[in-house]
Amino acid sequence: MTQTGYESRPLLRIARTGAQGPADRDIAEECPVALEYQGIGYAVLMATPADLIDLAYGFSLSERLIDRADQILDVDSFRAEQGFILRIRLAPEVAGRITDRVRHRASDSSCGLCGIENLEQALRPLPQVSQPCLADDAACFAALAALPGHQLLNHATGSAHAAAACSADGEPWLVREDVGRHNAFDKLIGAMARAGRGWDGGFALLSSRCSYELVEKAALANCPMLATISAPTTLAIDRAARAGLRLRVLVRGDALLAADP
Amino acid sequence: MTQTGYESRPLLRIARTGAQGPADRDIAEECPVALEYQGIGYAVLMATPADLIDLAYGFSLSERLIDRADQILDVDSFRAEQGFILRIRLAPEVAGRITDRVRHRASDSSCGLCGIENLEQALRPLPQVSQPCLADDAACFAALAALPGHQLLNHATGSAHAAAACSADGEPWLVREDVGRHNAFDKLIGAMARAGRGWDGGFALLSSRCSYELVEKAALANCPMLATISAPTTLAIDRAARAGLRLRVLVRGDALLAADP
Repeated sequence: MTQTGYESRPLLRIARTGAQGPADRDIAEECPVALEYQGIGYAVLMATPADLIDLAYGFSLSERLIDRADQILDVDSFRAEQGFILRIRLAPEVAGRITDRVRHRASDSSCGLCGIENLEQALRPLPQVSQPCLADDAACFAALAALPGHQLLNHATGSAHAAAACSADGEPWLVREDVGRHNAFDKLIGAMARAGRGWDGGFALLSSRCSYELVEKAALANCPMLATISAPTTLAIDRAARAGLRLRVLVRGDALLAADP
Repeated sequence: MTQTGYESRPLLRIARTGAQGPADRDIAEECPVALEYQGIGYAVLMATPADLIDLAYGFSLSERLIDRADQILDVDSFRAEQGFILRIRLAPEVAGRITDRVRHRASDSSCGLCGIENLEQALRPLPQVSQPCLADDAACFAALAALPGHQLLNHATGSAHAAAACSADGEPWLVREDVGRHNAFDKLIGAMARAGRGWDGGFALLSSRCSYELVEKAALANCPMLATISAPTTLAIDRAARAGLRLRVLVRGDALLAADP
């Protein structure tokens, strides 16, 4: 595993004509990343091993284990044989959330919550987005045009998702990448939180499809507008409307689609 | 929620020129689907609500809760307010796997396994693929050309993944779709198991990126070759090589890349 997030691999190119030849290609890395809070294993993500400290912060925010970056006292990232471990130490004020969550999961599995109860937990209420959006649609088109210049991992591999924080006039000022779209957005949210930066009337642009998890992460990060290059799902539209989150989807060079609350 | 897997939504199209107009669009559905085994809630997936019985079988195989379709006695699918519930009844010979798994998860969370132990569990050994692959590369190109004709959900929405079982000469004979690539493949594997059909020297073609989870599902389904339209990750290549699974990736009209074990 490298720190660039990709690695060259020897593949064989086979043309439709039958012609064959070696083809070294940069391949995006994916490896297990275990998150440990207060010494307790909490989750294993499959992620690109770059910007892992940002991932620790963003994941903790998206999981509602913390509300602010300063509730993480420190993160120790180290490499194990099978992947990476992120050891996260929470401030005393939120440390109880881990034991609560873990106790809840233990009782889930041992007392056998039924499917209906599990469904209810899957769609927890979201906070209302309270930040104003100062970006207009021209800013979406500007951000789309500027994004490829920031996608280093995707430029090398052709298979990484990007999440960009864009200013109100459409300048991507912070970009994170990962083979997983959820990780890319968590890394961005974590990097912003660590830098003490907010959305400042701007928005998030994601290279991916707009699924409900991305809407949830945006609402929890109080992001006023979420723009995605690909299409939304019905649940993403519904959840965004309920959270007061502006959605711009299928953002392409010539047009975009708005799904406003 | 419909049974077609999509639903029309009124959106607003905004052109780069500023021109605006209503744009009804078919949007792929995504909703929570809770899986219950022997009355115990096991998992909640976000999935497109079509072919859910296939999903129940395929997920159970991929999770190694069953080895064969006849180890599921019945599946009851019904709609709840928040999504769908799949109530699965396992044969007595495998019913113990649920309580084992659930007990294991309970002890994970309450005794606090550390990150290293969690990493080890994330990459469990895979079985060796034992089925021969009789398909050549021309079959991959043929399957790629034929696939769009089978992607009804994607044709409507532009945002669904497809998983196709293809014969040795490249004819897609069974296709399943979902907003999630893992679900699409699980639906395909489940549908094949229910029909008592094997790969017969053929292969699986997926419209998506080749991530490690798809390699794991293919190996567990004893699929001799996995072809994907988009790029692989390093872990997918490594895991496929270890399981003896032939990989064809970035399958495009003019060429493909081979990553053979």
